Amino acid sequence: MERVPVLKIGDILLVSIQIDMEDQVALQLQEDLADRIVSTGCHGVIIDISALDIVDSFVGRTLATIASISRVLDAETVVVGMRPAVAITLVELGLSLPGIRTALNVELGMDLLARQRAEEYGDEDDEDEDEADTPAVTAS
Amino acid sequence: MERVPVLKIGDILLVSIQIDMEDQVALQLQEDLADRIVSTGCHGVIIDISALDIVDSFVGRTLATIASISRVLDAETVVVGMRPAVAITLVELGLSLPGIRTALNVELGMDLLARQRAEEYGDEDDEDEDEADTPAVTAS
Repeated sequence: MERVPVLKIGDILLVSIQIDMEDQVALQLQEDLADRIVSTGCHGVIIDISALDIVDSFVGRTLATIASISRVLDAETVVVGMRPAVAITLVELGLSLPGIRTALNVELGMDLLARQRAEEYGDEDDEDEDEADTPAVTAS
Repeated sequence: MERVPVLKIGDILLVSIQIDMEDQVALQLQEDLADRIVSTGCHGVIIDISALDIVDSFVGRTLATIASISRVLDAETVVVGMRPAVAITLVELGLSLPGIRTALNVELGMDLLARQRAEEYGDEDDEDEDEADTPAVTAS
């Protein structure tokens, strides 16, 4: 059976969908992703659909389900790489992918996830930089 | 026609091969990758083959060709995610993928590329940190 691989990059799981989303493939992907989120502790999932010519209602529903599962496991999902024609067809079909965040490409998706994570938990890196910028001054 | 997407992540292009590598798909991938290396100026290419059950001589040759094209364009190629069974079959077939670097997964592949790049060109980040550690002192 064909299977969509889940790639771990830093704190993010990346899925590039290239094959037809049949029932079994979609179910397997949901299971694999949930397992990987739990085993890796990743907080972000990026799903690249730049290879897809068509996103029908089944694929739309699968993406929404994945996003919901991830959210329950404390991971945000961003769908990236949607082609312009796909976006037009989706809206014409009355599917606007409610509850799914999107970004133009993988890098912007990673930025979005990092920004969101920083807002939620406070950016610890910034504090370190602030300390470096204002060194302690000792009077002599 | 099916097409393998090329994803840009920082200084690296990521390709996840999931579909059968027919002639046209392989040629298109070589062309797309060469175009993206030139247009983005990326210095590393990671090809994930964790979805492949079989790597035959044609796929092996395609990977070698991609690595050669990339090298001419000043980008290193790392093949990642090979399944144990695939590695065994490859060697039994007498294919040991000469000239192709491998890593266990995408993250280790990225580390390998970053380390190699740092060795070749010296690590510029280190210099910045050194400057921050030794602030200029002005006598008053």
